[in-house]
Amino acid sequence: MEDPDSKAAHALTLLRTPGVGPVAHRVLMERYGSARGALAWLAEQGRGRARDRAALASDSRSDPDRRAVERDLAWLALPGHHLLALADPAYPARLREIPDPPPLLFVTGDPALLATPQVAVIGSRNPSLGGREQAESLARGLAAAGVTVTSGLALGIDGAAHRGALAGGGYTVAVAGTGPDRIYPAHHRALAREIVARGAVVTEFPTGTPPRPEHFPRRNRIISGLSLGVVVVEAALRSGSRITARHAADQGREVFAVPGSVRNPLARGCHALLRDGAKLVETVADILEELDPGFRRAPAPDPGEVASVPDPDTTQRRVLEALGHDPAPVDHLVERTGLTADAVSAILLTLELRGLVASAPGGCYERIGTGP
Amino acid sequence: MEDPDSKAAHALTLLRTPGVGPVAHRVLMERYGSARGALAWLAEQGRGRARDRAALASDSRSDPDRRAVERDLAWLALPGHHLLALADPAYPARLREIPDPPPLLFVTGDPALLATPQVAVIGSRNPSLGGREQAESLARGLAAAGVTVTSGLALGIDGAAHRGALAGGGYTVAVAGTGPDRIYPAHHRALAREIVARGAVVTEFPTGTPPRPEHFPRRNRIISGLSLGVVVVEAALRSGSRITARHAADQGREVFAVPGSVRNPLARGCHALLRDGAKLVETVADILEELDPGFRRAPAPDPGEVASVPDPDTTQRRVLEALGHDPAPVDHLVERTGLTADAVSAILLTLELRGLVASAPGGCYERIGTGP
Repeated sequence: MEDPDSKAAHALTLLRTPGVGPVAHRVLMERYGSARGALAWLAEQGRGRARDRAALASDSRSDPDRRAVERDLAWLALPGHHLLALADPAYPARLREIPDPPPLLFVTGDPALLATPQVAVIGSRNPSLGGREQAESLARGLAAAGVTVTSGLALGIDGAAHRGALAGGGYTVAVAGTGPDRIYPAHHRALAREIVARGAVVTEFPTGTPPRPEHFPRRNRIISGLSLGVVVVEAALRSGSRITARHAADQGREVFAVPGSVRNPLARGCHALLRDGAKLVETVADILEELDPGFRRAPAPDPGEVASVPDPDTTQRRVLEALGHDPAPVDHLVERTGLTADAVSAILLTLELRGLVASAPGGCYERIGTGP
Repeated sequence: MEDPDSKAAHALTLLRTPGVGPVAHRVLMERYGSARGALAWLAEQGRGRARDRAALASDSRSDPDRRAVERDLAWLALPGHHLLALADPAYPARLREIPDPPPLLFVTGDPALLATPQVAVIGSRNPSLGGREQAESLARGLAAAGVTVTSGLALGIDGAAHRGALAGGGYTVAVAGTGPDRIYPAHHRALAREIVARGAVVTEFPTGTPPRPEHFPRRNRIISGLSLGVVVVEAALRSGSRITARHAADQGREVFAVPGSVRNPLARGCHALLRDGAKLVETVADILEELDPGFRRAPAPDPGEVASVPDPDTTQRRVLEALGHDPAPVDHLVERTGLTADAVSAILLTLELRGLVASAPGGCYERIGTGP
C-alpha cells in the first residue's frame, strides 16, 4: 500500500502534467492502477521521445509543474482540506457515474457530505428580488427535509440557495470554478467560510486556478453530477443554468424549473426548460414528491370542506366566504360582507388565531391550511 | 322542402319541449329527420300515454312552452339574429364534432364567423392587471394573425380577450351562458354591442334564459368546441377555466397556459395545466407555431433590451428593481430600497405617470408595459 502522502503527491503530479486532461488522467489511472504507475509510464514515454527526437532542445513542456504540486500539497496539509481521487471510497458515488467525472476533487470542509442526497438550486447571478426569495425558501425547505443543497457559490440565486440551506439548519455544498485556495466572487468570502463550517466547498481545479469563463460550464457538470436533480429558479434564455440543466438531463438527473411572469426576462430560461420537459416547481413539495414518490405532501385544501369546519359562527363564515381563495384587503371584505371595518378586523384576528387565515403582503388576508 | 320559418318554429318547439334535452333532441332529429317529424312522434307518444293513463288529469307538463317559442321567433325575426341547427351547413363544423354539440345555436351578428379558425382566450373573472394585459395582447396578436378570438364575455380575462381582438382589427366570438336577448354581465353590454358589430355572440340557451351557475360549465364546452385551441391566461386552481381546458382536452383541442409567478395565486390553475401537458405560452407565436407548424416566429426579443429604456434616474430604477415582477406593497418597497415611505410613494407616482408601474389590489404596485 502506497502511503497517503506520496499517493497524493503522485496524483497531483499527474494532474499537473501538461497534456494530461481529465480523460487521459482517468484512462492512465485505469491502465496503470495508480498515479505512480501512470507517471512511470509517462516518464518512459518521455525518454523514448527524447531519444527519437534528439534534435529537440527540450521536452520541459511535458514536465509537471513541481512548484505547483508543492503548493497543492501545502494546501492539502492544512486542517479540513481533503483530496479525493476517483477510485477513493469517499469519492461521491453519484458523481463517479457521469461520463467525465473529475479525476481529483479538492474539498474544503466535510467530504462525507458529498455522499448525502443532494439537490442543486441554481439560477441567475442577477435575479429579481422575488427569484432570490424563492431560491432561499426552496433551499430552506429542502434543507429542512434533510436534503443537502448544492450550488455554484455565484452571486444571486446560488448565494441565496446556500444561505437558505444554512438558514434551514441544513447542509450545503458549493462547487467552485477556481482553485480551492481562491474564493470567487470575493463578495462571497464570508459565505464560503460559513459553508465550509457547515458543509463543503468542492472544486476539480488545483490551487492557484483563477476564475476563467471556460471553467464555469465545466464546473456545472459537477453541480448536476453530485445531485439527484437540478432546480433552476431564474435564468435567462441563454445562461449557465441552462447548461447545467442540459448536463443534468444528459446525466439522467431530474430537471426542475420555477415558472415566472412572462414579462420577467429571467423566467424565459425556466420556461424553455419547462417546454423541454422539466418538472414545474411551485413549492418544495413538488421537488420532494418527484425525487421520492413515498413523500407525502400535505393534503391540498379542498374548497368543499367548508361545511366540515368546526362551526365558525355565522359572521366568521361570512368573512371567510367573502375572502374567497385569493388574498384580499380588509376594505374589500368590508364591502363584500357589509360589516364594519372594526368587526371585520376582529373576526380576521379570530380566524387567524384559529389557523384559518393568514395575513398576506399589502395588508391583505388569505385563507390557509385545510380550512374552508 | 319545409319553409325556413316553420322549420325554425318546429326546431324551437322541440327545444322548448320539457324533457327533451340536447341528447334527446339530437337523437330525435336523427331518427325522424326533422323537428316536425320528431314533434309528430312526441305528440303520438303523448296521446298514447294519455290513453293509457286516463286517470291522470293532464300531461300539460310535457307540452312545449308555446309563448316562449313565440318569443324566440320574435327574437329571430330581428335583423342580425340567426338560428343554426346541427344539420345546417352553416352550423360550425368543428363544434359539430364534439360529443354533445348544442342542437341549436342562437347567433347575434355574423354566423359566417363561426366557421373561421378560432382560438379561445379565457381566464379569471378577477385577474391581476398583468394578466388582463397579457390576455389583451395575446388576443390582439391572434387577431392580427387572422385568427378569430373566442371567449365567454365574462368580466376579467374574457373581456380583455374580446377587447384585444377588436383592438387588433380582428374578429371575436362571445359564447354566452344566457339567452340571446340577455347580456351577462350587464357591465359588458357596450362590449357585447361591439362584438355583434364585428363578430358574433352565440348561445345555446333560448330567449329569457337568465344567468344560472349551472349554465356556465355547459357554455364552456362550446367555447372549446368552436376553437382549435384554448389559451388560459390566469386561473385559480379550481376554476371554470380549468373546466374549459378539460373540455378542450376531451374534444382533442390544444390546451395552452400562460405561466406566472409562483406567488400569484391566479397562476396556480395555469401551472396545474402545464403539469398536465398544456403548451406553455409566452408570446402569441407560441400559439400560432403550435397550431400551424408552417408559422415562422419573429426572432425573440433580447432581454438585453432592458438597457435601452429611456433612463429612469437611479432612485427610480432602484424602486423599479425592488418592485420585481410581482405586485408588492409600498412597505416592502421601503424595506427593499432603504428609502423613506414618502420617497417611495413619490417615485411610484412618477413611475405610474410614465406608464411603468400601476397600482394593484391591496395597495400593491406592479410593473406594467414593456418598461425596464
